[in-house]
Amino acid sequence: MAGSPRRAAGRRLLLPLLCLFFQGATAILFAVFVRYNHETDAALWHWGNHSSAANEFYFRYPSFQDVHVMIFVGFGFLMAFLQRYGFSSVGFTFFLAAFALQWSTLIQGFLHAFHGGHIHVGVESMINADFCAGAVLISFGAVLGKTGPAQLLLMALLEVVLFGVNEFVLLGLLGVRVWAGLGVGWSVPGWGLLSSCVPPPQVRDAGGSMTIHTFGAYFGLVLSRVLYRPRLEKSKHRQGSVYHSDLFAMIGTIFLWIFWPSFNSAPTSLGDGQHRTALNTYYSLTSSTLSTFALSALVSRDGRLDMVHIQNAALAGGVVVGTSSEMMLTPFGALAAGFLAGMVSTLGYKFFTPILESKFKVQDTCGVHNLHGMPGILGALVGVLVAGLATHEAYGDGAPAEAALPGLPLRLPVLRGPGLLGGAWGA
Amino acid sequence: MAGSPRRAAGRRLLLPLLCLFFQGATAILFAVFVRYNHETDAALWHWGNHSSAANEFYFRYPSFQDVHVMIFVGFGFLMAFLQRYGFSSVGFTFFLAAFALQWSTLIQGFLHAFHGGHIHVGVESMINADFCAGAVLISFGAVLGKTGPAQLLLMALLEVVLFGVNEFVLLGLLGVRVWAGLGVGWSVPGWGLLSSCVPPPQVRDAGGSMTIHTFGAYFGLVLSRVLYRPRLEKSKHRQGSVYHSDLFAMIGTIFLWIFWPSFNSAPTSLGDGQHRTALNTYYSLTSSTLSTFALSALVSRDGRLDMVHIQNAALAGGVVVGTSSEMMLTPFGALAAGFLAGMVSTLGYKFFTPILESKFKVQDTCGVHNLHGMPGILGALVGVLVAGLATHEAYGDGAPAEAALPGLPLRLPVLRGPGLLGGAWGA
Amino acid sequence: MAGSPRRAAGRRLLLPLLCLFFQGATAILFAVFVRYNHETDAALWHWGNHSSAANEFYFRYPSFQDVHVMIFVGFGFLMAFLQRYGFSSVGFTFFLAAFALQWSTLIQGFLHAFHGGHIHVGVESMINADFCAGAVLISFGAVLGKTGPAQLLLMALLEVVLFGVNEFVLLGLLGVRVWAGLGVGWSVPGWGLLSSCVPPPQVRDAGGSMTIHTFGAYFGLVLSRVLYRPRLEKSKHRQGSVYHSDLFAMIGTIFLWIFWPSFNSAPTSLGDGQHRTALNTYYSLTSSTLSTFALSALVSRDGRLDMVHIQNAALAGGVVVGTSSEMMLTPFGALAAGFLAGMVSTLGYKFFTPILESKFKVQDTCGVHNLHGMPGILGALVGVLVAGLATHEAYGDGAPAEAALPGLPLRLPVLRGPGLLGGAWGA
Repeated sequence: MAGSPRRAAGRRLLLPLLCLFFQGATAILFAVFVRYNHETDAALWHWGNHSSAANEFYFRYPSFQDVHVMIFVGFGFLMAFLQRYGFSSVGFTFFLAAFALQWSTLIQGFLHAFHGGHIHVGVESMINADFCAGAVLISFGAVLGKTGPAQLLLMALLEVVLFGVNEFVLLGLLGVRVWAGLGVGWSVPGWGLLSSCVPPPQVRDAGGSMTIHTFGAYFGLVLSRVLYRPRLEKSKHRQGSVYHSDLFAMIGTIFLWIFWPSFNSAPTSLGDGQHRTALNTYYSLTSSTLSTFALSALVSRDGRLDMVHIQNAALAGGVVVGTSSEMMLTPFGALAAGFLAGMVSTLGYKFFTPILESKFKVQDTCGVHNLHGMPGILGALVGVLVAGLATHEAYGDGAPAEAALPGLPLRLPVLRGPGLLGGAWGA
Repeated sequence: MAGSPRRAAGRRLLLPLLCLFFQGATAILFAVFVRYNHETDAALWHWGNHSSAANEFYFRYPSFQDVHVMIFVGFGFLMAFLQRYGFSSVGFTFFLAAFALQWSTLIQGFLHAFHGGHIHVGVESMINADFCAGAVLISFGAVLGKTGPAQLLLMALLEVVLFGVNEFVLLGLLGVRVWAGLGVGWSVPGWGLLSSCVPPPQVRDAGGSMTIHTFGAYFGLVLSRVLYRPRLEKSKHRQGSVYHSDLFAMIGTIFLWIFWPSFNSAPTSLGDGQHRTALNTYYSLTSSTLSTFALSALVSRDGRLDMVHIQNAALAGGVVVGTSSEMMLTPFGALAAGFLAGMVSTLGYKFFTPILESKFKVQDTCGVHNLHGMPGILGALVGVLVAGLATHEAYGDGAPAEAALPGLPLRLPVLRGPGLLGGAWGA
Repeated sequence: MAGSPRRAAGRRLLLPLLCLFFQGATAILFAVFVRYNHETDAALWHWGNHSSAANEFYFRYPSFQDVHVMIFVGFGFLMAFLQRYGFSSVGFTFFLAAFALQWSTLIQGFLHAFHGGHIHVGVESMINADFCAGAVLISFGAVLGKTGPAQLLLMALLEVVLFGVNEFVLLGLLGVRVWAGLGVGWSVPGWGLLSSCVPPPQVRDAGGSMTIHTFGAYFGLVLSRVLYRPRLEKSKHRQGSVYHSDLFAMIGTIFLWIFWPSFNSAPTSLGDGQHRTALNTYYSLTSSTLSTFALSALVSRDGRLDMVHIQNAALAGGVVVGTSSEMMLTPFGALAAGFLAGMVSTLGYKFFTPILESKFKVQDTCGVHNLHGMPGILGALVGVLVAGLATHEAYGDGAPAEAALPGLPLRLPVLRGPGLLGGAWGA
């Protein structure tokens, strides 16, 4: 009895204390370790006698801002489709992502860009931190409605570390750059053959989206299994008018859809690489939209479109070309991949999500398995296929993208596609 | 009797089958005809020994993304002002535009950029496809509420072809580049005189907005006449609270307003041309906003502002300088043109739309005649006027924009203003 | 009695007549004084034999568009949190900002960029005009709900002039460039010492945000005091469901939050300066978000988050580094400044706003004192501190940013940080 108000006070203080503690710890680590890189430091930049126009800022910042919109507006409002979680989804997205940006700057820096005792930051580290925040928000989508902000903060704390370790294991320990596209690291038969016969430049994980989407989705699903609550009100049963909730969710959907070409192309190599990645993603999204509308009308009882399909599955085209859009996928390849992804995702919402809950006890609130999980796996397979079909001719003689980066150390930009102007991380 | 369920099944299958058929056909045509251009193809770009910074991507992609936001967020939410069509307008915009992007890449490619048996794509074809999608959505605004998704898909199929043919006729058959500004090709007395006395560079259709706005509006109005339904509930009679619908519509209005400078400047010649186009459009929009507020309060019975005017007529300033904003319109000229357009558009909503329905049996659901039709015609006249007043001095000696493009073939960038770095289409 | 309908007619005509008169006057002044600058004028640009890629448009336009989104979407929807003013806040923001853009182009031009009898305009004048519109909208936030559109128009008319004069006094009459960061010009003890021992380049007002935020906030608060109405329904008492209003307001919050790095970096020197400014602002915003969530939960009675805090105080991190983000603030410094700002702002909403109304009779409808006033003052102090700690080593030997601008005349870009490619204003 006496403990009850004390416990309430404890709950009340939990979030503020966690926030203040984490912010304090992060700030101290920033003070000790984080420094401007040679493109954001006044002295380093001016000593280098660089032209202002050559600063990587001008090549990546517009794409970064598009990614930033996706993370905060896109993911935030996309999850607002559940009427009763509308404000939570936007507000907690804001909160979680803000923390993840700081924390992943440190973790990604320690694991991938730690040189001379310091982490060096610039526009590339901003993009990478936003990507990691994206993975956290995907996981949030799987557990939406089951946890409060303090629990979510702890989830982000853990997930950001695992996200960084996942990248590090694939890159550093296994030394297998071609595995980058395979997300959480399952194996593909015959991969050894591929890796020996394809030229290196086309086996990157352009946009790192596989790592992000597949990792984020399965991390969230595992968490959702752990937090399984049999009597959780299902998303189908939300009461009252969902009219405005659906329009708010469409704000999220549309901004994600529009800026996905920037998401995949933000970290690729400059020039044709970035250009091609944006173009492929653009085509892939148009066909996943058409296949979603087609399948949604086909599988419904009365031919009506299901808003949940449109809000989510239409985006699968962006996920599926995450690995392959930097490669010579061809415009047709982009259309085909997008079409397949939209179809798989829509069918997943219709048939697989109910099974996931009834058989596997995984309540996937926002259906991240359909939007990020399956299209992510599919995207890895597309990446392997396109890499396997690659020829020296298609990429230009002598693999110039690689040639421009001799003696490349093991650092994050390798995974995500290095900037030709020189990596912003630590060089 | 027996046929009734079968007919229902047919209706249910119509949309999926159309989608799948069109997507299949488009994909096959892409496989056969569409190729990366020299700035998106790895081999072509690297063989050219280009600097990454010279890729046209960096000069046009930020503007492209702004246009992309206008098409999907702007047009989609603008039409959400009718409460009962809120979700339809956003959802069908999404669907129609996704299809139009693919289809117009093919049609525009065949008609304007078909070289060596292939259509070559890059950021310019993305911008052009988005423009064509814009015209389709303008037409959609005229028939909103009268047709389902399958009919709209057929409308887009037809309109994209006519849009391309319209451009082709103006350019190829008539060989009259100066006509580009005149939209659907009505004639202006005294034009022959103008064309002989003005230097060529200032007679472009910067942003191609005339072709888009005027064509899109009248195509939609003709369709609306065909679909005339005497007892269609009028937009005035929408019931219940429209409060949130109006705020959603303002999302569309504001994003269109903000990014219109990018819409007009996305396809212009690089350097001063793109800079000036954005500046002129920016000024024109500010004055059309002021004249809309003034006129809206003036013509109302009680001095209150009409939200429909604000949501629509304030945008007329972007339409009216579509042709002339690349020219030496002067900042004053931009203000004057925008003021006039806002006034004409507001008066159109007040006085002309009712006549259009009662006399001409054209139900213009979103008032596209006021926002796109009349300001588009006005914009053509402004373009003719500014071209007529042009001097060699104003544009620099020797017309350098033209000089930089010797032996210009008949291709789309000519209509829209060629990139000085070399057209992305087929070169 | 007889006068009553006449007075009603007068009220009805007031807004239209003011609009038409102001628009007419502005247009005439534009015709006489405003000219394209050397980067937007066809002849000047081509005579200069410039490469298209060197046009300042490509370095500033993407940031300008982000600022434009903040002004019209960000401020507009942020103020929509009051359910009954939702449409007014968005609509009047639109109207006021459109007028302020034109009017401040003239005022800023006369005071800061008047050369050879003309004001020269380009992308920098667009950014500066948007900044001035931002100050007007901040003031609008303080008086929201107390005035109609005609009164607001008069407020903007006056405020734009004072905004320009404030800048001019600081720059021209006092000749004290280091004062730029001090907003409305209060003095800091020991400043004389600082100004003599710090190298010049680090004492700019990057983003001019101090001038904007502090000036805008206190102008609005003074106006709010003048318009004090004891029985004004307080914001707390808004009735009915505020669910959707809060989601609309979050649209404003999130877009402001996302694009604040562009706001601060839009007018800075190119290269490392712009890059560093964006990076510092990004970090500062993440920590102000965390401290807002922490403090909001801490000061509430039941541990629940207050949406007003989240919608507003989380943004204080952008305001507080307005002056210092261009300097070598260090990533840690950005986190610390943002944390402090979020804390001060949240505590302001909780404890200071009620006092402001009860003791000082200032009804601060949107709490601009907490979001813009106090963080702005704090930002000036941070700027002084960072400038005081600056060394020649940190900024590179010989202060190259300054060296690149010999014989800098007194013009706006000095205040806001000059473009290395040459100011767009009048040069």
